[in-house]
Amino acid sequence: MNNEAINFTEKFSKFSKHWSPHVIAEMNDYQFKLAKVAGEFIWHEHPDTDEVFVVIEGELIIEFRDDKVELKAGEMFVVPKGVEHKPVAEHECKIMLIEPKGVINTGAKSSELTADNDVWV
Amino acid sequence: MNNEAINFTEKFSKFSKHWSPHVIAEMNDYQFKLAKVAGEFIWHEHPDTDEVFVVIEGELIIEFRDDKVELKAGEMFVVPKGVEHKPVAEHECKIMLIEPKGVINTGAKSSELTADNDVWV
Repeated sequence: MNNEAINFTEKFSKFSKHWSPHVIAEMNDYQFKLAKVAGEFIWHEHPDTDEVFVVIEGELIIEFRDDKVELKAGEMFVVPKGVEHKPVAEHECKIMLIEPKGVINTGAKSSELTADNDVWV
Repeated sequence: MNNEAINFTEKFSKFSKHWSPHVIAEMNDYQFKLAKVAGEFIWHEHPDTDEVFVVIEGELIIEFRDDKVELKAGEMFVVPKGVEHKPVAEHECKIMLIEPKGVINTGAKSSELTADNDVWV
């Protein structure tokens, strides 16, 4: 067992690319990923799993087809499985994603924003 | 779908009892729980699951039989399944726990610190 605390600030300092989730921890078959986001992502859904967004710094909007939720630091939201969503951040925002290992950031859609999976930092 | 952000500060304001995890969200069959802790918990382990600790405010020490990890706000740690641990906080500390639904806070040990399960806030 590696008995070191996982520090979000330190992990965020190690990458800069937007919309590129980096794994920082695993719990059973789930992963904790940090991402820096800015601008608009694409509409997508995850048909097999819920997806958790925790805002660490900044503000994030998650748009749905008929609604939206606005999150700031110290807030989280669970996007239910199968629900189309589009994350948007006016300014750079730092988030943590929690979801099963293997989930692709753009869901079933291939896009230039589709990130490599299982990249650790 | 309830499109409201889950705000940690607001949720923490709704309970005060120590070592009493309160559920704030579910992702698939996992739960996110907030807890206020102070003093020493008991030695215990969770034989079937890893357990995630995220420190939201304050400082937490997780003792192991042969080591320990010190966590402050903005840090997290994954206690592997089956590993005996004892959380300790010198001053009140606010944490988020992430683990499968149904996990009991004291593991297999019954204690006066064993909390009711699945209490939402």
